[in-house]
Amino acid sequence: MASKAKLRGGIDLGGTKIQAVVVDADSKVLGSARHPTPTTGGPAAVAAEMAGALNEALEDADADAAKLQGVGVGSPGDVDAKAGTVARAGNLPDWERPFELGKALSDALGTPIALGNDVGVATEAEFQLGSGDPYQSLIGVFWGTGVGGGIILDGKQWHGRGGAGEIGHVVVQEDGARCPCGRHGCMEAYAGRGAMEAKARKEHDDGRKTDLFKIMKKHDRVRLTSGIWQRALDADDKLAHELIDRAVDAIGTAVASVVNVLDVEAVIIGGGLGVRLGEPYAKKIEKRARKNLFNDSRPPDFRVASLGDFGGAIGAALLVDGARPS
Amino acid sequence: MASKAKLRGGIDLGGTKIQAVVVDADSKVLGSARHPTPTTGGPAAVAAEMAGALNEALEDADADAAKLQGVGVGSPGDVDAKAGTVARAGNLPDWERPFELGKALSDALGTPIALGNDVGVATEAEFQLGSGDPYQSLIGVFWGTGVGGGIILDGKQWHGRGGAGEIGHVVVQEDGARCPCGRHGCMEAYAGRGAMEAKARKEHDDGRKTDLFKIMKKHDRVRLTSGIWQRALDADDKLAHELIDRAVDAIGTAVASVVNVLDVEAVIIGGGLGVRLGEPYAKKIEKRARKNLFNDSRPPDFRVASLGDFGGAIGAALLVDGARPS
Repeated sequence: MASKAKLRGGIDLGGTKIQAVVVDADSKVLGSARHPTPTTGGPAAVAAEMAGALNEALEDADADAAKLQGVGVGSPGDVDAKAGTVARAGNLPDWERPFELGKALSDALGTPIALGNDVGVATEAEFQLGSGDPYQSLIGVFWGTGVGGGIILDGKQWHGRGGAGEIGHVVVQEDGARCPCGRHGCMEAYAGRGAMEAKARKEHDDGRKTDLFKIMKKHDRVRLTSGIWQRALDADDKLAHELIDRAVDAIGTAVASVVNVLDVEAVIIGGGLGVRLGEPYAKKIEKRARKNLFNDSRPPDFRVASLGDFGGAIGAALLVDGARPS
Repeated sequence: MASKAKLRGGIDLGGTKIQAVVVDADSKVLGSARHPTPTTGGPAAVAAEMAGALNEALEDADADAAKLQGVGVGSPGDVDAKAGTVARAGNLPDWERPFELGKALSDALGTPIALGNDVGVATEAEFQLGSGDPYQSLIGVFWGTGVGGGIILDGKQWHGRGGAGEIGHVVVQEDGARCPCGRHGCMEAYAGRGAMEAKARKEHDDGRKTDLFKIMKKHDRVRLTSGIWQRALDADDKLAHELIDRAVDAIGTAVASVVNVLDVEAVIIGGGLGVRLGEPYAKKIEKRARKNLFNDSRPPDFRVASLGDFGGAIGAALLVDGARPS
């Protein structure tokens, strides 16, 4: 049941899924819905699906749009919060030029829309409401299709000139493996689920034995999702273990580099794979990072993102005016 | 000639040399002196030599200690500014336990002493008075025996929990070359003058032809100083070129990683080797960094530290109360 207090909506726009939530004044999730991200129809189709997911979350919360103070959106790509546009949304179909996502959603939902960067809002959510709550400085590492990063210094997000936080493109091997970004040796080239899947396919095509793709088909998937990787690990698939261990090494190494430069209090591991693999793998990442922590007498705390799959959407809802705790 | 305005002293304590300056209210250098860092006698001998160097700088400025408002010191190791102590000063002899450097110098010079971290004060000097002046965010890369780093974000130094800025220990090769710090793959393992000298000696001992050590002896040195490297490059020594290029690649790669995370406006290249090799090598570092800059449409500016060898000492003088521009 929705309370009489004003509600906020939050939408996390991902390459695979759209997660929508409706939260109360304390950021408690009252309703939620998850839709697959449309792969055809361009930005307009994606916006329509986002509105659909939010309406379903409202139903789930037994509330109606009139009660919404506003809806926040965490989006990939180049987000211009003021203009209400999103451009170059990496994994999304036909989404190169700026699209007026704010206007499209506000027309569909009849409520103010606030746009933010997907990783930024997820970091903010963990910092304000999740595992990052005890700290004033931290990095968020969002391990999914790519590996995104968020930075909190002195209680505030650090954006640089707008492009900070690209922890997935911290180099772990000079002139190393080719990254989906086109450069070489980036952490994401070893640890991003996209790069891992490409590597697994290649090994499989080259005759390497693995059940990864069998499990994928059995579960009616076309990609190696986090759940598929988890199942392959549980089934002790050797290639899955190898590739995940390789990813853990790359993430741990990159995290150590960043901590050596920023000396933050905590490292929060989130994202689809990070949340799915959870504590045991956060421990492995910590162990690898410690090998390269310069200030090894005072390592940061390593924590799994506690808001789980909802973190991005809850963080998006924090974008709505007046949502931030005073 | 010293003006009537109050003067400040600054001392940059290095592993090889002690650089002292006397500056006026505008941080203009009125006098300077450079002494070799004592290799025996422990912290007390080092402190005595520091006082000697400052007195010589006072003579050079035609001023006396009574005119000094105070003396600032940039020191390696664990600096406790409040307690006036320095511990674990890496390259310095028998300097593990905390030594009351502030008291020793204040007794010898009869003036208040302010302690700071060597790389921190050098970064501050470049930011306030040098190449960093046009920017509000930058990283300083001090390429010398080791490779130190300083970070300015939003016009202020970022120290983290006290250990930030270790850009020399950003990893460039997972499980790569052993670093003087004992870990593997750090940038400094390829780019620090200490590591480069060890590598050159090994190659030479293994029969590799090089004039590096001939030039060193000719110039009456026992180490491969920045000047020796410069001369070997000028003489087109093949090994010298190889090792410097390898260092440039490592620095460029680490800088790219840090810029991908922080998106700062500028990268300032300083330190003994950085200043000595100057613009052409800063350009090479920039070129290498660009290969891995994620936001490649808006790279940071790359600049050589403009205060040169005096930067550390001038920055140290900024530590004296009231020296910072309001």
